[in-house]
Amino acid sequence: MRDMKSILADMEAGRLSADAAEKEIRACFFEDLGHTTLDHDRAARTGSGEVIYGSGKSAAQIDEIFDHMVARGSNVLITRVDPEKAAALNALKKGASYHAVGRLVTHLTQPVLQTAHTVAVVSAGTSDMAVCEEAAGTLEFFGNPVNRIYDVGVAGLHRLLARLPEIRAARVVIVIAGMEGALPSVVGGLVDKPVIAVPTSVGYGASFNGLSALLGMLNSCASGLGVVNIDNGFGAAHLANRINRL
Amino acid sequence: MRDMKSILADMEAGRLSADAAEKEIRACFFEDLGHTTLDHDRAARTGSGEVIYGSGKSAAQIDEIFDHMVARGSNVLITRVDPEKAAALNALKKGASYHAVGRLVTHLTQPVLQTAHTVAVVSAGTSDMAVCEEAAGTLEFFGNPVNRIYDVGVAGLHRLLARLPEIRAARVVIVIAGMEGALPSVVGGLVDKPVIAVPTSVGYGASFNGLSALLGMLNSCASGLGVVNIDNGFGAAHLANRINRL
Amino acid sequence: MRDMKSILADMEAGRLSADAAEKEIRACFFEDLGHTTLDHDRAARTGSGEVIYGSGKSAAQIDEIFDHMVARGSNVLITRVDPEKAAALNALKKGASYHAVGRLVTHLTQPVLQTAHTVAVVSAGTSDMAVCEEAAGTLEFFGNPVNRIYDVGVAGLHRLLARLPEIRAARVVIVIAGMEGALPSVVGGLVDKPVIAVPTSVGYGASFNGLSALLGMLNSCASGLGVVNIDNGFGAAHLANRINRL
Amino acid sequence: MRDMKSILADMEAGRLSADAAEKEIRACFFEDLGHTTLDHDRAARTGSGEVIYGSGKSAAQIDEIFDHMVARGSNVLITRVDPEKAAALNALKKGASYHAVGRLVTHLTQPVLQTAHTVAVVSAGTSDMAVCEEAAGTLEFFGNPVNRIYDVGVAGLHRLLARLPEIRAARVVIVIAGMEGALPSVVGGLVDKPVIAVPTSVGYGASFNGLSALLGMLNSCASGLGVVNIDNGFGAAHLANRINRL
Amino acid sequence: MRDMKSILADMEAGRLSADAAEKEIRACFFEDLGHTTLDHDRAARTGSGEVIYGSGKSAAQIDEIFDHMVARGSNVLITRVDPEKAAALNALKKGASYHAVGRLVTHLTQPVLQTAHTVAVVSAGTSDMAVCEEAAGTLEFFGNPVNRIYDVGVAGLHRLLARLPEIRAARVVIVIAGMEGALPSVVGGLVDKPVIAVPTSVGYGASFNGLSALLGMLNSCASGLGVVNIDNGFGAAHLANRINRL
Amino acid sequence: MRDMKSILADMEAGRLSADAAEKEIRACFFEDLGHTTLDHDRAARTGSGEVIYGSGKSAAQIDEIFDHMVARGSNVLITRVDPEKAAALNALKKGASYHAVGRLVTHLTQPVLQTAHTVAVVSAGTSDMAVCEEAAGTLEFFGNPVNRIYDVGVAGLHRLLARLPEIRAARVVIVIAGMEGALPSVVGGLVDKPVIAVPTSVGYGASFNGLSALLGMLNSCASGLGVVNIDNGFGAAHLANRINRL
Amino acid sequence: MRDMKSILADMEAGRLSADAAEKEIRACFFEDLGHTTLDHDRAARTGSGEVIYGSGKSAAQIDEIFDHMVARGSNVLITRVDPEKAAALNALKKGASYHAVGRLVTHLTQPVLQTAHTVAVVSAGTSDMAVCEEAAGTLEFFGNPVNRIYDVGVAGLHRLLARLPEIRAARVVIVIAGMEGALPSVVGGLVDKPVIAVPTSVGYGASFNGLSALLGMLNSCASGLGVVNIDNGFGAAHLANRINRL
Amino acid sequence: MRDMKSILADMEAGRLSADAAEKEIRACFFEDLGHTTLDHDRAARTGSGEVIYGSGKSAAQIDEIFDHMVARGSNVLITRVDPEKAAALNALKKGASYHAVGRLVTHLTQPVLQTAHTVAVVSAGTSDMAVCEEAAGTLEFFGNPVNRIYDVGVAGLHRLLARLPEIRAARVVIVIAGMEGALPSVVGGLVDKPVIAVPTSVGYGASFNGLSALLGMLNSCASGLGVVNIDNGFGAAHLANRINRL
Repeated sequence: MRDMKSILADMEAGRLSADAAEKEIRACFFEDLGHTTLDHDRAARTGSGEVIYGSGKSAAQIDEIFDHMVARGSNVLITRVDPEKAAALNALKKGASYHAVGRLVTHLTQPVLQTAHTVAVVSAGTSDMAVCEEAAGTLEFFGNPVNRIYDVGVAGLHRLLARLPEIRAARVVIVIAGMEGALPSVVGGLVDKPVIAVPTSVGYGASFNGLSALLGMLNSCASGLGVVNIDNGFGAAHLANRINRL
Repeated sequence: MRDMKSILADMEAGRLSADAAEKEIRACFFEDLGHTTLDHDRAARTGSGEVIYGSGKSAAQIDEIFDHMVARGSNVLITRVDPEKAAALNALKKGASYHAVGRLVTHLTQPVLQTAHTVAVVSAGTSDMAVCEEAAGTLEFFGNPVNRIYDVGVAGLHRLLARLPEIRAARVVIVIAGMEGALPSVVGGLVDKPVIAVPTSVGYGASFNGLSALLGMLNSCASGLGVVNIDNGFGAAHLANRINRL
Repeated sequence: MRDMKSILADMEAGRLSADAAEKEIRACFFEDLGHTTLDHDRAARTGSGEVIYGSGKSAAQIDEIFDHMVARGSNVLITRVDPEKAAALNALKKGASYHAVGRLVTHLTQPVLQTAHTVAVVSAGTSDMAVCEEAAGTLEFFGNPVNRIYDVGVAGLHRLLARLPEIRAARVVIVIAGMEGALPSVVGGLVDKPVIAVPTSVGYGASFNGLSALLGMLNSCASGLGVVNIDNGFGAAHLANRINRL
Repeated sequence: MRDMKSILADMEAGRLSADAAEKEIRACFFEDLGHTTLDHDRAARTGSGEVIYGSGKSAAQIDEIFDHMVARGSNVLITRVDPEKAAALNALKKGASYHAVGRLVTHLTQPVLQTAHTVAVVSAGTSDMAVCEEAAGTLEFFGNPVNRIYDVGVAGLHRLLARLPEIRAARVVIVIAGMEGALPSVVGGLVDKPVIAVPTSVGYGASFNGLSALLGMLNSCASGLGVVNIDNGFGAAHLANRINRL
Repeated sequence: MRDMKSILADMEAGRLSADAAEKEIRACFFEDLGHTTLDHDRAARTGSGEVIYGSGKSAAQIDEIFDHMVARGSNVLITRVDPEKAAALNALKKGASYHAVGRLVTHLTQPVLQTAHTVAVVSAGTSDMAVCEEAAGTLEFFGNPVNRIYDVGVAGLHRLLARLPEIRAARVVIVIAGMEGALPSVVGGLVDKPVIAVPTSVGYGASFNGLSALLGMLNSCASGLGVVNIDNGFGAAHLANRINRL
Repeated sequence: MRDMKSILADMEAGRLSADAAEKEIRACFFEDLGHTTLDHDRAARTGSGEVIYGSGKSAAQIDEIFDHMVARGSNVLITRVDPEKAAALNALKKGASYHAVGRLVTHLTQPVLQTAHTVAVVSAGTSDMAVCEEAAGTLEFFGNPVNRIYDVGVAGLHRLLARLPEIRAARVVIVIAGMEGALPSVVGGLVDKPVIAVPTSVGYGASFNGLSALLGMLNSCASGLGVVNIDNGFGAAHLANRINRL
Repeated sequence: MRDMKSILADMEAGRLSADAAEKEIRACFFEDLGHTTLDHDRAARTGSGEVIYGSGKSAAQIDEIFDHMVARGSNVLITRVDPEKAAALNALKKGASYHAVGRLVTHLTQPVLQTAHTVAVVSAGTSDMAVCEEAAGTLEFFGNPVNRIYDVGVAGLHRLLARLPEIRAARVVIVIAGMEGALPSVVGGLVDKPVIAVPTSVGYGASFNGLSALLGMLNSCASGLGVVNIDNGFGAAHLANRINRL
Repeated sequence: MRDMKSILADMEAGRLSADAAEKEIRACFFEDLGHTTLDHDRAARTGSGEVIYGSGKSAAQIDEIFDHMVARGSNVLITRVDPEKAAALNALKKGASYHAVGRLVTHLTQPVLQTAHTVAVVSAGTSDMAVCEEAAGTLEFFGNPVNRIYDVGVAGLHRLLARLPEIRAARVVIVIAGMEGALPSVVGGLVDKPVIAVPTSVGYGASFNGLSALLGMLNSCASGLGVVNIDNGFGAAHLANRINRL
């Protein structure tokens, strides 16, 4: 599929009618699959291509989207693909990879420019792993080296303090925690880098599926934190990538 | 006013009719002031006398209760007395003390047995002061030495770590914090004493008047915490006194 | 595995290089299993060893943690292990016990010092049993004799009053209730010991999975209560053990 | 103002045109004051006349309603009249009474049939007084003898037990409590009469302006309770009157 | 099993030792099955015997309770028994009946005194049926004739108005509705009998599992309503029975 | 089944007794199936016939309702019929159609008057499809041509802007969105037609099953929006039909 | 101020440079006052001009906006202007009108095209008046005749039924109610016109400042309702005007 | 006041005892004012000095803190200082500046290094001004040039699109919006820079004091957003500064 410049050149050269040109130009911007309107312009506009949110889409719909994106030469990232859906995907047979813990499907059609700096992904507990890996996998897809520092929650501060130098060495820090969500406050008070806080739904009772952690992070007494939705490892990674590419 | 034993002795000795005895015995247990039913038996039953919740009571009602309690020889603690109401109290003219920051009125009719051990009152920020002093003043009223360790929240961990030996030296630790309420989790992971966590309504926006701190403390990843109501410095002190007197 | 004193002695005696010593000393404090960072120092710091929260961990992860802890000579307590996960654990074949009602796995590598006093576990209804047994099993794991007093909710006060002497004989009282969560208020007004209140998710409709009971306990008109998270029998027991060991 | 029978008789006798009759008949049912549509038929339909909710209405509007109702020979009850608004009412100069604690204005244009049985109004604490007196005043306006039993909350059970015979002697029991709202559960388990539970906004922090008490009462483990809105003393009394008149 | 009078008579006559008498007297009041403390005194105290809440109890526990109650000559009502649990109950083989729609198990050991008046059970929609039948079945168990008036919600007022005479003929009216829960307000404005409002969890989206209906009923502009918990058909029937037996 | 006029004509002509006439007339208004009271008058009163809410009704109940409605010559629309229930319906064998994505069963007994204007159904994302098709299918059932414009959410504004002329050509616009629900605000600011906003439960974490989208739409800074319940495609279509038929 | 056509004509005729033309064209669309960016294009785009939300703006800011809009020949509507702010407005001295009950400031610079049909504004109670008049005043500002039908809530259905013909005669119906918000459901079941439901914050306790009424309206069992924000009389009128102008 | 190096140099040189050195070193880290523990080490640790949260502190406390910080040569930023408190501050007489709209007090003791790039502060409406200026003032205090782009909410998209080039020219974008909070989603889909979203409490009714905007931003369908607490202009600026200084 061509970019707008070459289309206009063809038209100027008389190789393409105005009508045909308009059609092709529109296709540079989006493509209507009926159920889905693919946003092909997103990379130009926002710095990274459209990512497919897999939840609520059928395997067939995902495969159709996958094929269109690959045909256009786009790299493909699909989030929230549970193992049952993954098993039904043709995309995996066509070379896409499945990251089971982070529930991601990725496919690189073209190489990705690697960033110079690392992003640290810090987690409070083992049970936060799925969210951590959604973040880490997304970061790697976008070309960011990742330093995983897991299970260093505030109930055992020395575990965190021991790894502080590594955390401080990263350019952006993602901190992931469930339950009371205190870890970003503590990290935020110890580093001078932007901290992206991800509440998780890990916990029970008055955790109210992550609400407690979310509120904790929004009310942090430490400054310099930005918060994303509960369990939104992808969104944290997306923001971290934007920052890391400045 | 007499205790039950002496009443029964009088009756046995024929100095008191059964009817009169019954009336006096009932008065050992409670006294009906119309608006209020004083619970004179509470100290015998629960280890500490009735405490008057000042909010929602008029100065006149509080004075009437004060007089009845003093007449019975009880020590008097009245909580949640704001400065306007305090200014209208006769009790202060009769020797009661007003603790303006903690909004307490206290009066000692009889000496209080001092405990052997200290209770630490630890707070996250300066704005938590009113709750801290409600706790500290209540502890002192009940005879517990208090070590005040204020404004050592998690955004500056070294402030807390520097005072850890003092905190560890206490027999019970009360930790008071607003906003995200992370301090009790951190303290709970560093000491081996019972920790009583008090959320405060300090904060704004998504703190929802202390709800965020409350949920944070209930979901703490550190074990060994008991939580009380938002801003309930009195309740924390009451529980700490029960523990400290074991 | 050795404690820090013997490591330093070896180094002093020239039997260990500084580098090797540092490595061993670090291992006294924590151990990184990749998914989990074991906190080996917790017992020294907080008076009781690390407890494994089984929910959200795979049987394989739990078994790996179990083996490392046993290898270090630690006693092991794993909470929230449902029957399906328990059936998949190798730990049970290696001598660990499974307490089905309380969903606990325990293993004693070394003997536990028994406390001199009893903890009472009081419940409002039969349906609170799983939380009660999580509390009772945890207390026994930590060496506290337990007096179980079940199904004595406030709808039939005489059942409670009949067992009041037993409750008063305990040093710490855990009160567990769902629905409106009124039992801790009533018990708190009748005893002079610290009361730990545990709301449960028992109920339906406006119980909102335990929120009603939680709010009831936090707002108790009786003083001297500390509240833990909904269904958190383990946390209540942990706090009771801290108090009982004072 | 006439009832429908006499209007129809007049028409039949030729003393009234059909048009005039229709107008008068409509006026038996309601009357449009512009801001307010008075429901004159309510007593016939529901057993008790329309009651004016004073909050959100100006003194002038209330006075206009008052005059129309008195002109029709109706008894008048106006609720939620705070002292400032009461001071501005002409109705009080025309013989209406103001009950300051319960914030009620009442006026008897015709005598009320007294019920044979008593309604007990039981409260947990002194601070619930305004709600109690709204209930008690409404009951007395409707002709029900009231037995006030105040400040007998569950933190001092003996106060309640001592007055149980009086409570059991009533035909309907209204129980009013703030904070955790446990009193209706305890009373409901001790009597065999219908219990109407009124949560109050007394409390602070996690009482969330009465939500905690409301949820507690809705989830009561005792059966036979009906709950009304927070602070709705009037509504409880209205229901109690309906029951007491069966 | 004997009542207290005959026990005391035996003791007076020397046929029973004091120790044995005490034991038997205690058994009149409650019985400890380990998991459950049966409240045998409840009928004497509250006018109706203990009802078993089936949810959260195993079939074996229910059967054990059933046998003890039948052995004492009590009538048995067990609520919230889903079909799977019912299929596992021995009680059904011993003559108990299962009401599948209302999820009730009932067994009459002794005859029930029928009330003179009817209770109307009015519902807004077909989907409220399970709650309606829990109420109706409970009312019949307690001896109240029931008039079922179903699916007459406010979206088609004429259905309701057509059946108003029947509703007015009842002594107590139970109104059951989900979604916005408006039906009790409309009925409450049309009858002069006590109305018990039952919100149901019927609905979706912003019904929040019955919260919308619950709030609607608590805020009803019609007076004379008492509200019970969401889906609590049993509780409504219990209260209606108390009122109907006055 | 006859309409009222012909019934009255028969009575006037002596072909029908008053009693029989009353019975037939009542049947014009509603019909009592025991579990359901069919509202046959609804079309006359509100402009569109009764629609059956399939959730919470058994296949047998739905079939019985279907047969009665078809017998009366009514068109039939049943919403919220999941595939399992659809598979069990006899109605489908009798000519009714099943729209699987929108979970609708429809049957046209009589032709529907088509509207002159189109309704646009605009959605933010592919995952909103079920709600979209519930709306579109309902609109078509009621005779409104539908223009489907799907997956044009605000993250890619150009997709929306490209289709603005089509949206502006409709007489009524339904906008369906989950997550933050921002699309109706943007559309509402770009068109001059009534906009009906439908929040969906698409999302996770702090979307709280559609609450976030619902609140977003209610607080829209664009005017001229009416909001319906979460996932309520049917209700939006019903309102659009009313407007489109003005 | 000129419209775009005349600007372009001037440019074409050489009376205006391209630069000057661009500036003037931009000014047709919006104007930046620093604190406020006036949207002058809104009428062309959405059918009605920009309305100023007065809350949170100072009198001086409102006056500045007023002057700019009048200078452009726009009609001006400012909402949520409380009496204190109104008293400080210069606009009132320049001919604008203040509607105190509805808190509106209006000014007609050019005549408004009156609609052919009436909008009915129906309210449940007298206390909803401010919201009613915000709606009615907005409707009249936009040129819609209004029929006010106030205080006809569901507690007295005959008041509503008596005015049903008037309600049915309107082309659009706005229904305004607080407390349980049941009136729109009842009206929605009785008319065949679009119904716009406005919840109000009238009520107390569990009305939670209008949340109860809002949820009630969103969950209405009657179809054909669109709901707006709590107390949003303006928004309802805006939508009604859009519909009424179709 | 000296830094640690010079202290240690003095000690090494014998000019300072170990005890005195320890005291001075501690003072480099924090200073205990009784009510407040100043965190002097924060700049070294996190890249920017401690900021004083003015709410809940008295003017006297703020002045004392101000003096200590100035004495140490720190720049001072105090947030949430309302005009009444500002009027009582001595700091303003000593050269500090008061920014009334943003409620900030600032004082530069030493020059601030200016950043090379701009931060854009974009707002939806005029009423968001206080939050905007808290953000802008904080950014300028920390040395970031600010581009203010106010009142460009989504109800008038062209206002936003017209200023898109300016927004794209910034290195970090702060987007501030109340009501439904849709602006960050739209901006986030149009730029490739990190976007920090700030919900405000602007709105009424179902905005629930900013909750609606907060949820909208957390659930944004656009990626690359980090969210801060409601009305937290300071926090957004703090994070933007961290990013802008990378």
